[in-house]
Amino acid sequence: MNVAVLAHEKFPDRAKTAVGLLRYADYEVEAVLDRDNAGKRVSDLVPDVQDAPIVAEMADAPEVDALVIGIAPIGGGFDESWRSDVTTALERGCDLISGLHYFLEDDEEFARLAAENDADIWDVRNPPEDLTVAQGVADEVDAEVILTVGTDCSVGKMTATLELLEAARERGADAGFIPTGQTGIMIEGWGNPIDRVVSDFTAGAVEEMILERGDDYDYLFVEGQGSIVHPAYSAVTCGILHGSMADKLVLCHEAGREAVHGYEEFDLPPVADYAALYEDLARPVHETEIVAGALNTKHVEDDDAARDAVATFADELDAPATDPVRFDADEVVDELL
Amino acid sequence: MNVAVLAHEKFPDRAKTAVGLLRYADYEVEAVLDRDNAGKRVSDLVPDVQDAPIVAEMADAPEVDALVIGIAPIGGGFDESWRSDVTTALERGCDLISGLHYFLEDDEEFARLAAENDADIWDVRNPPEDLTVAQGVADEVDAEVILTVGTDCSVGKMTATLELLEAARERGADAGFIPTGQTGIMIEGWGNPIDRVVSDFTAGAVEEMILERGDDYDYLFVEGQGSIVHPAYSAVTCGILHGSMADKLVLCHEAGREAVHGYEEFDLPPVADYAALYEDLARPVHETEIVAGALNTKHVEDDDAARDAVATFADELDAPATDPVRFDADEVVDELL
Repeated sequence: MNVAVLAHEKFPDRAKTAVGLLRYADYEVEAVLDRDNAGKRVSDLVPDVQDAPIVAEMADAPEVDALVIGIAPIGGGFDESWRSDVTTALERGCDLISGLHYFLEDDEEFARLAAENDADIWDVRNPPEDLTVAQGVADEVDAEVILTVGTDCSVGKMTATLELLEAARERGADAGFIPTGQTGIMIEGWGNPIDRVVSDFTAGAVEEMILERGDDYDYLFVEGQGSIVHPAYSAVTCGILHGSMADKLVLCHEAGREAVHGYEEFDLPPVADYAALYEDLARPVHETEIVAGALNTKHVEDDDAARDAVATFADELDAPATDPVRFDADEVVDELL
Repeated sequence: MNVAVLAHEKFPDRAKTAVGLLRYADYEVEAVLDRDNAGKRVSDLVPDVQDAPIVAEMADAPEVDALVIGIAPIGGGFDESWRSDVTTALERGCDLISGLHYFLEDDEEFARLAAENDADIWDVRNPPEDLTVAQGVADEVDAEVILTVGTDCSVGKMTATLELLEAARERGADAGFIPTGQTGIMIEGWGNPIDRVVSDFTAGAVEEMILERGDDYDYLFVEGQGSIVHPAYSAVTCGILHGSMADKLVLCHEAGREAVHGYEEFDLPPVADYAALYEDLARPVHETEIVAGALNTKHVEDDDAARDAVATFADELDAPATDPVRFDADEVVDELL
């Protein structure tokens, strides 16, 4: 599928979804919309991802199948300065893919244009209506379930999951991806947005995905969310832990992170404490173990310092670790397959 | 407020909400609607709650301010055999209070009749739209926060919470109630239905209630939900634990319960393990302790056997315990105030 990705004024550093799509998705990105960088190319700003021209507006983009909203303002609202890009896309018959809290299909103008031009609107964050409570049966699938868990939110769980998935596939493993957040769902083209479902259905929404895919693969890599000791998001983490009935866990952390992101008055527990926190909580539902770690070292400039940070993290965890973006993942993948 | 309570064909044993209202709410119940028991009185079927006549339909009920739906079929749907009771109530200008998943305000006929007769429809399970993520500040209120937690769902957490609240008030404590489920919300006439909020807002929906009431009381008794090791509902439990930032926990259990209710293939951990499970998980957000236990002995016929069960539970917990419905709560309240 060919897409254009809207990332006005935020590309690349504050456009996590856009960069995630460029790096991991199967979409052919034909253009990035960013009025601040029009005329440049993606490769001028981000190495190691697929390249595309950057244009000022949808009218300048080549023909594509869909326009993807690749940024999310705080609060998840729709920025009215994007309206002409969206209407132009719909008038050209392009589908829309959006992870905003504001559902584009509820916008009267967009809904009308979509109907007139036979275009689909996929609000990724709008959960399916048929979700329900978990049955406690995710362990019945054929696949071994591997879940990334975190010391905190925003430590790079989605990236670690996708990098480890890729490394496993390079070894020839028959491995699938279970996304749980909007970027992961856009990358996979499928999935339940776990943080937007009814709280009673948190575990059930994960279980439903595992049952749907779990007999098609030997391994499922489940994208984790939040942290089990996060003051706001732990409910989602707990639901994913129990709903997935994961066989193995990978603990994700960011080098240097000492307090909860955005909640700085809460210290993170020592890395060594997380194994008991996750494993003891999981055990009554499904026995599991943290078998490896993924350390995000993107804010550590020097490679040697990053390597030291990984070694320290592995020591604290008493398990193999890597930064799967920066270094190879061999030792970690050995533990997973 | 004077109310009639609908409980057709399920009163009293499968009408938990109706019985909860009769026992704990400030409403004057003028009639229970139950076509199977019409002509009897509540006191013929349930001791120790306020008495009221049982009638066959709303047309036979005296004048009341509201009709409360006091039962919930599996799935939470609306039973069409109740429609004439509801329309009769609305035509008489009665408000409606309902905890069904099916929202009565979305029913065209009910919405029209409510508008015509100036009646309000309160769908208790419909969460407010302004909920958001927790800020991690529930510990800033003046009140000491006491939360009931469970070894499982359906062990009697709401009942234990309300009994302990009453015992504390009898001691002269200035104590408030924070409900989290539909029956508790109806009893209190206020509250967020935690199991129906967006999963990301689970902790935030509890925190919001504590901030609203926490400076008006010396103690807040928070109704817990589910269990931290429940295969389906643990997310809600975890969100309440972290969102409430409880200072003290009371562990609730049902005598003889050995497996998860409705998920019998999952054994409950030993009672002694729950202290670490709850306390270790809570600690990084807010230090807390299980200071007492509440054992539901309603299925133990003999008083001596019930007393033995409580003593064993207290031993396993290494803390004072009682069945606050059956026995006095003095020792437990000593720990809470």
